Amino acid sequence: MEIVRTVSWMKEAARLARAENQVIGFVPTMGALHEGHLSLLRRAKSECSQVFASIFVNPTQFGPNEDLSKYPRTFASDIEKLEAAGVDLLFAPEPEEIYPAGFSTYVTVEGLSQRLEGKARPGHFRGVATVVLKLFDVIQPHFAFFGRKDAQQIRILQRMLLDLNSDVEIVVCPIVREPDGLALSSRNAYLNAQERSAAAALNRALKAAARQVQTGVRDSLTLQSTVRDVLAQEKLARVDYVEIVDALSFEPVAHIGSRATYVLLAVFVGKTRLIDNLLVEASADLGALNCSL
Amino acid sequence: MEIVRTVSWMKEAARLARAENQVIGFVPTMGALHEGHLSLLRRAKSECSQVFASIFVNPTQFGPNEDLSKYPRTFASDIEKLEAAGVDLLFAPEPEEIYPAGFSTYVTVEGLSQRLEGKARPGHFRGVATVVLKLFDVIQPHFAFFGRKDAQQIRILQRMLLDLNSDVEIVVCPIVREPDGLALSSRNAYLNAQERSAAAALNRALKAAARQVQTGVRDSLTLQSTVRDVLAQEKLARVDYVEIVDALSFEPVAHIGSRATYVLLAVFVGKTRLIDNLLVEASADLGALNCSL
Repeated sequence: MEIVRTVSWMKEAARLARAENQVIGFVPTMGALHEGHLSLLRRAKSECSQVFASIFVNPTQFGPNEDLSKYPRTFASDIEKLEAAGVDLLFAPEPEEIYPAGFSTYVTVEGLSQRLEGKARPGHFRGVATVVLKLFDVIQPHFAFFGRKDAQQIRILQRMLLDLNSDVEIVVCPIVREPDGLALSSRNAYLNAQERSAAAALNRALKAAARQVQTGVRDSLTLQSTVRDVLAQEKLARVDYVEIVDALSFEPVAHIGSRATYVLLAVFVGKTRLIDNLLVEASADLGALNCSL
Repeated sequence: MEIVRTVSWMKEAARLARAENQVIGFVPTMGALHEGHLSLLRRAKSECSQVFASIFVNPTQFGPNEDLSKYPRTFASDIEKLEAAGVDLLFAPEPEEIYPAGFSTYVTVEGLSQRLEGKARPGHFRGVATVVLKLFDVIQPHFAFFGRKDAQQIRILQRMLLDLNSDVEIVVCPIVREPDGLALSSRNAYLNAQERSAAAALNRALKAAARQVQTGVRDSLTLQSTVRDVLAQEKLARVDYVEIVDALSFEPVAHIGSRATYVLLAVFVGKTRLIDNLLVEASADLGALNCSL
């Protein structure tokens, strides 16, 4: 696996791959790789002739009170995992390479970026959109692979790519979960044993909502109450939001209809803020709704 | 000359030109073409194997109280001028092609965009940066040609291209002037005969400053007074700003030193707001300063 540290070298590697008519699949990460990332790499490997990954803990997507300095950094073991996954190239720049002195250009996706995670984490999505645009410009992938856990982020990036006439296609991959249902996240490393056990409540709450949907409940207030009730039984959990939104606009909906809909939640477990979601879509079997966790 | 109306067709034309190893020079315009634009086209023609131009009156760079609807539109004569200049391709999209329903992504260059023209015209540079990024993404030029009259705009675009790791290079071309010194601008069409005559005061004022610089004056306050005094003699002119700024940061400077410096002015003549500038740079002849109008 080639390890690239500079933008100019990365651009040259991308040019060469393009000139060879490689189909480039890209998996952007902040390192601290877990099975969720590895599932993205496997998917990229199965669909593309070259797989490029990046490890970059992007400072502009962390708020002033967030966990940039203590964000888990496990570079040596990440490298081993990437090698084992058959990644062809790793782009791992230092922050100064991505944000040189005087850097002042930012990309914002209005509306979508201001709700939910955007409200809870001001500036977060501006940082994400900016770094992803830069990474795509430098790496020139055909496909980029993201996990559905970050549903709002994916929707914002899709809107950005459409608006900026990009040819990069985002491939949305399923959420990977622990046996007890906890969605994999690098931030799970912050949880102590009690919190780790409590964190399973997020998935339990979404499962309860999914069961209700499957028995015909469509009303958002009812589903939200169900989710909140399950979470309330877990003393270490403190709900930040439980929202039911249209999967394209991320605007709240009062009822789940035929359009794809997310049940989104953000929950503090101890001091660690975790997110998870349930996707509800019309299934091929008309009248039924399909729930993806 | 090929006339392209859609993004998808334009991208395909750009791909073909790139595949043929053409060197693509691009001149973005809002139409109402004058000799200033034609000088850019000639420069592009002399340096590139293919010249692409665009005509797009970009709605997002006009403020709510600005002149979008009455901005001069002279498409038929523009086409003749572009044909005569040997332009290979014209990209002339409708607004809905560039900003489809739901468009919500904007590029901002902080700091630089908030001063001077950015202060006078809130949102203007956000609109300019966004449309130029989109045009560059779609047209994929090697070089893009801009007139130095819009000095702050050029600096903002250079910063954006640097920050976003773009390979497009901006070629800055001299200001083209009427015999009486008025910088060419599509907005000059708004001036009645009296105002047209009064508008020559902008250049007279900058010339007075240039003469002072050449006699050794370096102090910004003195130079600003000189400019304001000349403008004050013209009853139809009302100064918006006269500023002396570093040519890279666009921050005000107290004295002109060895770094390139702009004397910038924005002046209302009647209801029409005009801008012009004087560039002062260290000349090859050490100790002397070179003034470009």
